[in-house]
Amino acid sequence: MFTVIGERINTTLKKVQAAVIARDADYIREDVKKQQAGGATYIDVNAGARIGHEEADMKWLLKVVQEGTDLPLCLDSPDPAILEMAYSMVNKTPMVNSISLEKDRFDAMMPFLDGKECKIIALCMDDSGMPKSVADIVDRATKLVEELEKIGMKRDDIFIDPLIQPMSVDSNNGNVAMEAVQTIMTDLAGVHTTGGLSNISYGLPQRKIINRNFLGLMMAHGFDSAIMDPLDTDIMAVLNTCEMLKGNDSFCMNYLKGVRAGNIKA
Amino acid sequence: MFTVIGERINTTLKKVQAAVIARDADYIREDVKKQQAGGATYIDVNAGARIGHEEADMKWLLKVVQEGTDLPLCLDSPDPAILEMAYSMVNKTPMVNSISLEKDRFDAMMPFLDGKECKIIALCMDDSGMPKSVADIVDRATKLVEELEKIGMKRDDIFIDPLIQPMSVDSNNGNVAMEAVQTIMTDLAGVHTTGGLSNISYGLPQRKIINRNFLGLMMAHGFDSAIMDPLDTDIMAVLNTCEMLKGNDSFCMNYLKGVRAGNIKA
Repeated sequence: MFTVIGERINTTLKKVQAAVIARDADYIREDVKKQQAGGATYIDVNAGARIGHEEADMKWLLKVVQEGTDLPLCLDSPDPAILEMAYSMVNKTPMVNSISLEKDRFDAMMPFLDGKECKIIALCMDDSGMPKSVADIVDRATKLVEELEKIGMKRDDIFIDPLIQPMSVDSNNGNVAMEAVQTIMTDLAGVHTTGGLSNISYGLPQRKIINRNFLGLMMAHGFDSAIMDPLDTDIMAVLNTCEMLKGNDSFCMNYLKGVRAGNIKA
Repeated sequence: MFTVIGERINTTLKKVQAAVIARDADYIREDVKKQQAGGATYIDVNAGARIGHEEADMKWLLKVVQEGTDLPLCLDSPDPAILEMAYSMVNKTPMVNSISLEKDRFDAMMPFLDGKECKIIALCMDDSGMPKSVADIVDRATKLVEELEKIGMKRDDIFIDPLIQPMSVDSNNGNVAMEAVQTIMTDLAGVHTTGGLSNISYGLPQRKIINRNFLGLMMAHGFDSAIMDPLDTDIMAVLNTCEMLKGNDSFCMNYLKGVRAGNIKA
């Protein structure tokens, strides 16, 4: 089944930051309730935008978010100290966002992950920058999986982010992402692939139709998770329709539920 | 590039039948102009609905359609005599709809096709009925290609229709179609795959969102033609967006044109 990582609780978003500053718990609880109703599997929580406040903001957010939902959380910080604190506060096995092959992040994250029960988002990034080809992405994914397996993580716990790059930069970037996902899902069978989709449409008009259609194309290549907005009913309709078409919705029950709720429209 | 076979000139459609009975040439010319503007590559012409009138109706339609468009036509009849007449009337190399492995149709169509310059839609149907598995579809496609190659047809002239079957009948039918297309496009490299998409959604509500998303999933597996309505701007927007995402739209020119025309909306 597809894993939806709800991206809305992030202090870089103005309304969320305002709610965090005002300690407006109702706003946050209401938002995560809606994300759960919309189809989120995990709720990402990122408190990194206010320099010097991340620890206090994260602590408050984790408490309030878990009052609003019983979904597991995706702990989103580059700082292992923040992640340790967050890990000690969660009610359910969390996902962690993220590790990469960049030396500083890798060296900081591996000791944190060692021995912990969690899911991990692993970015195909290293100190030379963004990947430049399918082989580049697959090599980095392979290295990440090898390292994470060494500390006892299971493939099912690993969510590889191939790092989608814009069509406006290179008209082959869609194919690169699709082929990389297909190869990772085959050659590293058992892992998941995830990522933010919206980068694909950067610099082009009418971005949402691009993001929606790219989700379908990526799903056809095995992409089985995304960091996305579960309140965007248009993209969630695409997700649920494609899951049905891929045979992951027995008797089309979830599709029919979406139609009855008015969220899936011709 | 994707081949769009415009399906609107068909006397089973009430308005078209009325226009044909009234010999309303303006209506037909206007329709095909709109199909061309909408993105059709071929205009399908089917005059089979009025028993006893097919020859006269086809003759009139072919004349009128070619006054309205300079696109090539897709001659749609099971009757080789009608097809011979139609073939003699077309200004451009046509497509023919269709041949299958059903003995009667196969035996009638092969002598017609032998030595002619045309494209052909080849249905994966035989006298035992609809295909029951991916292997079934691929076997039939292989047989059709072998037979058509024997009479000198090139793979580039062959459009295999895998015969899409409804999700409401079996929740694996989407996967069967996708896997069959992928295998055909690989193992019989050089041929095209086509078909009507709407069968996938038979028996389910909000059919158009299913058809649209299925088009994207199928395109991801190599499907490179469809028999469809070029005036349905929603599905054409999906087609043009997916072509762009697959790298078949240099500098996103066609996508941007669609956005400027108001046909592609977020």
